[in-house]
Amino acid sequence: MNKKQKNMKKITKKWSPRFSEPANNKVQRYTASVNFDKRLAIFDIEGSLAHAEMLKKQKIISAADLRLIKKGLNQVRKEIIAQKFKWSIEQEDVHLNIENRLTQIIGISGKKLHTGRSRNDQVATDMRLYLRDVVDNTIDQIKSLQKVTLSLADNHIMTIMPGLTHLQVAQPISFAHHLHAYCEMLERDKLRFQEARKRINVLPLGAAALAGTSYPIDRKFVAKLLKFESVMDNSLDAVSDRDFLIEFNANASLLMTHLSRWSEELIMWSSPFFEYVEISDSFCTGSSIMPQKKNPDVPELVRGKTGRVNGHLVNLLTLMKAQPLAYNKDNQEDKEPTFDVADTISDTLDIFREMVSKLTVFPENMEAAAIKGYSTATDLADYLVKKGMPFREAHGVVAKVVKFAINQKCDLSDFKLKDLQKFSKLILKDVFDSLDLKGSIESRKHIGATGFNSIKKALKKSRIKLSK
Amino acid sequence: MNKKQKNMKKITKKWSPRFSEPANNKVQRYTASVNFDKRLAIFDIEGSLAHAEMLKKQKIISAADLRLIKKGLNQVRKEIIAQKFKWSIEQEDVHLNIENRLTQIIGISGKKLHTGRSRNDQVATDMRLYLRDVVDNTIDQIKSLQKVTLSLADNHIMTIMPGLTHLQVAQPISFAHHLHAYCEMLERDKLRFQEARKRINVLPLGAAALAGTSYPIDRKFVAKLLKFESVMDNSLDAVSDRDFLIEFNANASLLMTHLSRWSEELIMWSSPFFEYVEISDSFCTGSSIMPQKKNPDVPELVRGKTGRVNGHLVNLLTLMKAQPLAYNKDNQEDKEPTFDVADTISDTLDIFREMVSKLTVFPENMEAAAIKGYSTATDLADYLVKKGMPFREAHGVVAKVVKFAINQKCDLSDFKLKDLQKFSKLILKDVFDSLDLKGSIESRKHIGATGFNSIKKALKKSRIKLSK
Amino acid sequence: MNKKQKNMKKITKKWSPRFSEPANNKVQRYTASVNFDKRLAIFDIEGSLAHAEMLKKQKIISAADLRLIKKGLNQVRKEIIAQKFKWSIEQEDVHLNIENRLTQIIGISGKKLHTGRSRNDQVATDMRLYLRDVVDNTIDQIKSLQKVTLSLADNHIMTIMPGLTHLQVAQPISFAHHLHAYCEMLERDKLRFQEARKRINVLPLGAAALAGTSYPIDRKFVAKLLKFESVMDNSLDAVSDRDFLIEFNANASLLMTHLSRWSEELIMWSSPFFEYVEISDSFCTGSSIMPQKKNPDVPELVRGKTGRVNGHLVNLLTLMKAQPLAYNKDNQEDKEPTFDVADTISDTLDIFREMVSKLTVFPENMEAAAIKGYSTATDLADYLVKKGMPFREAHGVVAKVVKFAINQKCDLSDFKLKDLQKFSKLILKDVFDSLDLKGSIESRKHIGATGFNSIKKALKKSRIKLSK
Amino acid sequence: MNKKQKNMKKITKKWSPRFSEPANNKVQRYTASVNFDKRLAIFDIEGSLAHAEMLKKQKIISAADLRLIKKGLNQVRKEIIAQKFKWSIEQEDVHLNIENRLTQIIGISGKKLHTGRSRNDQVATDMRLYLRDVVDNTIDQIKSLQKVTLSLADNHIMTIMPGLTHLQVAQPISFAHHLHAYCEMLERDKLRFQEARKRINVLPLGAAALAGTSYPIDRKFVAKLLKFESVMDNSLDAVSDRDFLIEFNANASLLMTHLSRWSEELIMWSSPFFEYVEISDSFCTGSSIMPQKKNPDVPELVRGKTGRVNGHLVNLLTLMKAQPLAYNKDNQEDKEPTFDVADTISDTLDIFREMVSKLTVFPENMEAAAIKGYSTATDLADYLVKKGMPFREAHGVVAKVVKFAINQKCDLSDFKLKDLQKFSKLILKDVFDSLDLKGSIESRKHIGATGFNSIKKALKKSRIKLSK
Repeated sequence: MNKKQKNMKKITKKWSPRFSEPANNKVQRYTASVNFDKRLAIFDIEGSLAHAEMLKKQKIISAADLRLIKKGLNQVRKEIIAQKFKWSIEQEDVHLNIENRLTQIIGISGKKLHTGRSRNDQVATDMRLYLRDVVDNTIDQIKSLQKVTLSLADNHIMTIMPGLTHLQVAQPISFAHHLHAYCEMLERDKLRFQEARKRINVLPLGAAALAGTSYPIDRKFVAKLLKFESVMDNSLDAVSDRDFLIEFNANASLLMTHLSRWSEELIMWSSPFFEYVEISDSFCTGSSIMPQKKNPDVPELVRGKTGRVNGHLVNLLTLMKAQPLAYNKDNQEDKEPTFDVADTISDTLDIFREMVSKLTVFPENMEAAAIKGYSTATDLADYLVKKGMPFREAHGVVAKVVKFAINQKCDLSDFKLKDLQKFSKLILKDVFDSLDLKGSIESRKHIGATGFNSIKKALKKSRIKLSK
Repeated sequence: MNKKQKNMKKITKKWSPRFSEPANNKVQRYTASVNFDKRLAIFDIEGSLAHAEMLKKQKIISAADLRLIKKGLNQVRKEIIAQKFKWSIEQEDVHLNIENRLTQIIGISGKKLHTGRSRNDQVATDMRLYLRDVVDNTIDQIKSLQKVTLSLADNHIMTIMPGLTHLQVAQPISFAHHLHAYCEMLERDKLRFQEARKRINVLPLGAAALAGTSYPIDRKFVAKLLKFESVMDNSLDAVSDRDFLIEFNANASLLMTHLSRWSEELIMWSSPFFEYVEISDSFCTGSSIMPQKKNPDVPELVRGKTGRVNGHLVNLLTLMKAQPLAYNKDNQEDKEPTFDVADTISDTLDIFREMVSKLTVFPENMEAAAIKGYSTATDLADYLVKKGMPFREAHGVVAKVVKFAINQKCDLSDFKLKDLQKFSKLILKDVFDSLDLKGSIESRKHIGATGFNSIKKALKKSRIKLSK
Repeated sequence: MNKKQKNMKKITKKWSPRFSEPANNKVQRYTASVNFDKRLAIFDIEGSLAHAEMLKKQKIISAADLRLIKKGLNQVRKEIIAQKFKWSIEQEDVHLNIENRLTQIIGISGKKLHTGRSRNDQVATDMRLYLRDVVDNTIDQIKSLQKVTLSLADNHIMTIMPGLTHLQVAQPISFAHHLHAYCEMLERDKLRFQEARKRINVLPLGAAALAGTSYPIDRKFVAKLLKFESVMDNSLDAVSDRDFLIEFNANASLLMTHLSRWSEELIMWSSPFFEYVEISDSFCTGSSIMPQKKNPDVPELVRGKTGRVNGHLVNLLTLMKAQPLAYNKDNQEDKEPTFDVADTISDTLDIFREMVSKLTVFPENMEAAAIKGYSTATDLADYLVKKGMPFREAHGVVAKVVKFAINQKCDLSDFKLKDLQKFSKLILKDVFDSLDLKGSIESRKHIGATGFNSIKKALKKSRIKLSK
Repeated sequence: MNKKQKNMKKITKKWSPRFSEPANNKVQRYTASVNFDKRLAIFDIEGSLAHAEMLKKQKIISAADLRLIKKGLNQVRKEIIAQKFKWSIEQEDVHLNIENRLTQIIGISGKKLHTGRSRNDQVATDMRLYLRDVVDNTIDQIKSLQKVTLSLADNHIMTIMPGLTHLQVAQPISFAHHLHAYCEMLERDKLRFQEARKRINVLPLGAAALAGTSYPIDRKFVAKLLKFESVMDNSLDAVSDRDFLIEFNANASLLMTHLSRWSEELIMWSSPFFEYVEISDSFCTGSSIMPQKKNPDVPELVRGKTGRVNGHLVNLLTLMKAQPLAYNKDNQEDKEPTFDVADTISDTLDIFREMVSKLTVFPENMEAAAIKGYSTATDLADYLVKKGMPFREAHGVVAKVVKFAINQKCDLSDFKLKDLQKFSKLILKDVFDSLDLKGSIESRKHIGATGFNSIKKALKKSRIKLSK
């Protein structure tokens, strides 16, 4: 790195002035994790408090030791929250920084806290406490987004838009139906996070370095204090398992994939080619050069950030591939991607919810697009089938009608009855009910269909799930 | 892979001479999917039979039509299994190939089968039937591997090996304990597949192209016939959702990651540097040039195939990113990676189970490695703590003892009492219990620890879970 | 794909009935590579012929041996091309299958062919010969696509379309300019493949298993016969290097990314929302249910297949990560992704070229879209700046004009002079030159700009590069 | 995010106190890039200075304007380097922050700087200036690592170790030969970065938003000032191309793959199972619980960080996939991964070089491992071939000898002549030359082989390349 780069790097990477970086020590900087794992501090203290309670209960430390440790850790926590804690890279990581400060405050009792545990099981515990918290929050945020989506859908049951396949006009649908599809995707996302939580919420503490400890510890007691559902049954697995991080990331990738699909649509819908919706000004920016521009920045960034989350997934999978048991230092690399995934989905869900809640919809533009594009052609085919023609034949007849309409530059509903009858004698006056957009939608009545009543029922069902 | 799957695989992997490829049609070859999706044939027919039953029940087709369709489809199935079916690339995909042949056999009634459905919901149904089958089989295979692993562990509770962290000798552990760690990973894999199954086992059929159909279909009836737990509540979602494939692939990636870690260990353990185990000849090959070589081909390939499965995951996530609703042709690309993931994990689980069951273990070499490397140093530290020294101090004292031992080129248990006492007056004669491998292991008694009794209980618990 | 490649592909994709798979041997199936590496057969023979020539020149084998080997290998080649070769999975791979057959034909001399080499350096040689061939073909295909694109651009220099950023209308541009952007991307792709070729085209043969051989071989002679530019200077590196495959795949990923971006545009352009172009029928399909549909299958598949190629890249990178030297069996997994990447880009380039050459363009629709959307707003700002207003101020004034126009639902060029002058006194009659689409384009005259003359020069420059 | 999380987040993400974050503005935070793109500040100023020079030369701004702009930008640069610059998130990005401050300092002339450019071409220029700098530095660092490696190799030409394939002992090799293999990989890395530099070093400035500008700019003049080799020939391509970032990342992935392979070996070599080398204390850490441990932290982290770099590659490829032309906001996501890749490889190369330079090697342990494991078995086979036996037969004979030796638990060189002769009458007294390690190595004399003279020549060739 040349001088110019170095200057800039200093600026960008600068740590807190409280952070005492030793001048020349590249290795320390390369191997220390405190600059990112200090984010776990609150959880580290929470875990230590439970561990200390147990040590005292098991008479491994004295009641006096426990009192001092509690007092000391509470002070450390206050210092951290008040941003007065002096993080030191020489103390490598969040664990040693805190333990060291604790011992400064309370003396020799602080040194007893690490009895019967190792940083290997400690950091696994911290990460699980952290991620449980993240997942609970994610589930709440998903629900909020679902709520907002359902509200928007409620207002647009009768709003007609062209349903697309292959970005071609296919059949008319209700806009509420379209919005409900995203509600369903989010429902699966929620379930996946809920299930992953079960595998996060298991206590690794007590595994010590890798083999357990010879102290008479009570792991179930610690689990109870920390609200873990159970304890991990194998100490080697406890210190080396990172499944829960990968599973969280995989779920986040799917969530982002859904929001990315939705964003793609919002970008198109707010373009002059569609004009279905207008995204509120606060989620857009202008151009530094083109005064007429209003750019859909937020959905573009959501779409872009999908790659970010997928990239982290590849990172974590690559990280764990072919590592021998038990703990290896490679695992320190599990934190930054996890934190970034957690922040990305939290920010995205938050902002997406607000954006959806402030969306302006132009029903007339949607309907105009549905009329154009022969979206009721299938209905004409179905009409013929109901009159007795085999489906594949009807399909052929309608294809001819559409070709003729394209040449005539008119819509199917513009035809006169006798024009239509040239294509099949089965066509009678009642055909025009099928060629009407509303009629087309109304005719699809079963579970999951776009029919107005079907979609009303579907929205209701979603709202009930949400209230649980 | 069960019999049904195997039959289909045979069909798919063979470009039958009966496959009439039109000479110059590059596009047809590029866009047609029949060369890989014919693998879904059996499931396509299964779905069509249920659809036809429902059409008849709802009086959309006649009883006579149904009879003919059933007869025809059964004949088609026979032709396929007997490999006499003439797949045609001009018929694009498995669906049109089968429907076309059906119509050849039974005439106009065949054309009625497609009433009220589309290839969009049809292929989604086929894929779910296929993957449900794969997942059931995967769960069985995981259980079989767990069983074999537990059996091996049973025989090696008293086998002592050095537990490693950072590939350095850490503490003595039981080999059974090490094997049990893999059992635990597989347990999580099993749970993940079981949960994913719930999201696979939902019926998309009835969504038609994207909006549902105007025919009075009964989706719950079809779901019941096909043993789906429920029906998808939104037709747009039904035709465009590929979450279930991605989720399956993500679970498969984690499974392969576990097997890859184990393989890494088997490769090291069977090398002359460890000599812990010998892999049965049938899982190894020789060298074309070096007559003395015995290469651990199978674990090497398992390790290698992890990248393959991870790559497919990236493929599928990239595929779905930013696709607008509903169905787009991109989705046709979902099949080959899914089939390959399914085959890879099925073959791997099968062969891995056999390899583990035929593993030769050399306990004496494991124990020798544990003695070398000061694996009981932690025990010495714990000994000092129990005598009243704070942990961090004890850690420092033992570090000095180890440094001295390295200089003397001897093990900790080789020291005389008075030598040890030079480092701390707290050391008494009973210290030698802690420096002994067996004693060290035995002292770790809590849940999840490597102590002989702990591991016995853990194995028992695993066996109970397995029998459920 | 050239003829040689095509022949081999035919062979590989067909599980010949002549292929004798032993019934129950799962392991053999799992570890054998012949079912995919037989695709290398022609290159394997080419390499063996050169190796044999060298062995004879160096007097390691006799002239009689060489004569027999040449005769035998020629016969083997004929059998393979005629699809009469009996591939056996018991012979593991392409190398042993061929050598075994050779020995059947010519007897003991066949056994001498493997002198001074190993399968490790042999397969590396085969892969390099194969990939060199693929890369040469890829470069030709890229050039063909560039040619077709330039031809289309030539016809559309005066075709005006709205240039988009953020999918919003930004400024008017020439359609030729837009097409030329893809030409430039392809130019970089071509360069990357050309550079990668240099690293492919180095001979590994002679590295033997990993250390070289004690036979007095002449590697430069073999390199010359096989048209390799040089020999690899380290035998460990020669057998373990897979950089060249990863580099090829990374280049292919970039190429697909470009074609995927273009496909995204073709899909939008051919939708009823744009109607800029019509893709020839032969690259589209209809719907099984909606008779009016014309789906842009080919660009959708191109977009989808990008994930496929990216996935293979992840596969290969994961495969090589953390492998100790020298050859490990994991590397066998390098072949299938490479073959698939090669086939995918070859088919895609081929079909894409044809699709572009048959594209129907609707200039009037493009121009209409440019008028709508205030695409000349920047020009108005620039007009003001040229009259003396600082840019940031001008930007603000025009933003007000556009807001007013939106409210009035009219275009900028619809305003009367006095209306415009309300926003700034600097505006005079000559402002209307700037508000005109053609005038706007014409005013951008520098290298790389969309001005008609600039784009003419750019096209010429591209054509000159192409002719080299 | 609950309160606990929020507190921690505040701590971790805290921006400089100079950074004025508006309280409630989530969107601003989500869309602004200044917190990471401020790292480009120096390059942004460099580009602006050149742009201003050109504007003045072309008489678009006055000499007085230029003087002021230069003065102002120099002051801004000083403020930034002195860390006194007040970055504001309301000014979105590095460009607006600097321009805004410039205008504060010099007044209206500052507003003229943006004439004839847009942030779209400005950021592309900044990134290219930045990455050119990074690449130059990377190339230097690679060379330094090569130098250190060659020095180590020089000292170990006569150090014998077992060459491994499949982690099994294959043939004896020189340790220098092994080290040289990494030198060769680094050589390819260097070439790839050099070639990528050519595609980085092309000027996008002048493309403006996407179409070029109507100002009479002189792009070649700007290119010359900024030392770009040429200008981009298409403005749409100039603002949307991110190939150069992906190519850089792909090259970085290959580099990390090489260092990861080497790290895997260092981890094994420094374990008690190999004891080939000792990594200097400063690159290792101890255990918080096991006093005897010395963990190879640095190579473990290098291995782990490979996933990180590969993940970023997936991120960038996913980001660009299927983006329509020209610039989209998604592209803002290109910066963080690029910065992280650049930092990761810079830190890693730096630290790796030092680690290698301080490596302690134990030649006697390497040689002992070579003796064990029948590493000269191939030499025995070659001996037989030279005596007239066809290679495949010789291979079979030696396999029997090795099997016998395993049973006898002795090495090949331990046999008596008459024992060996039982296996073949061709074996004479001179066989023992072939069974000796040194003899085996010496016999491999050709280019690229492990023979002592061959490796000397190879090292010399590498040193000459390096000096260029």
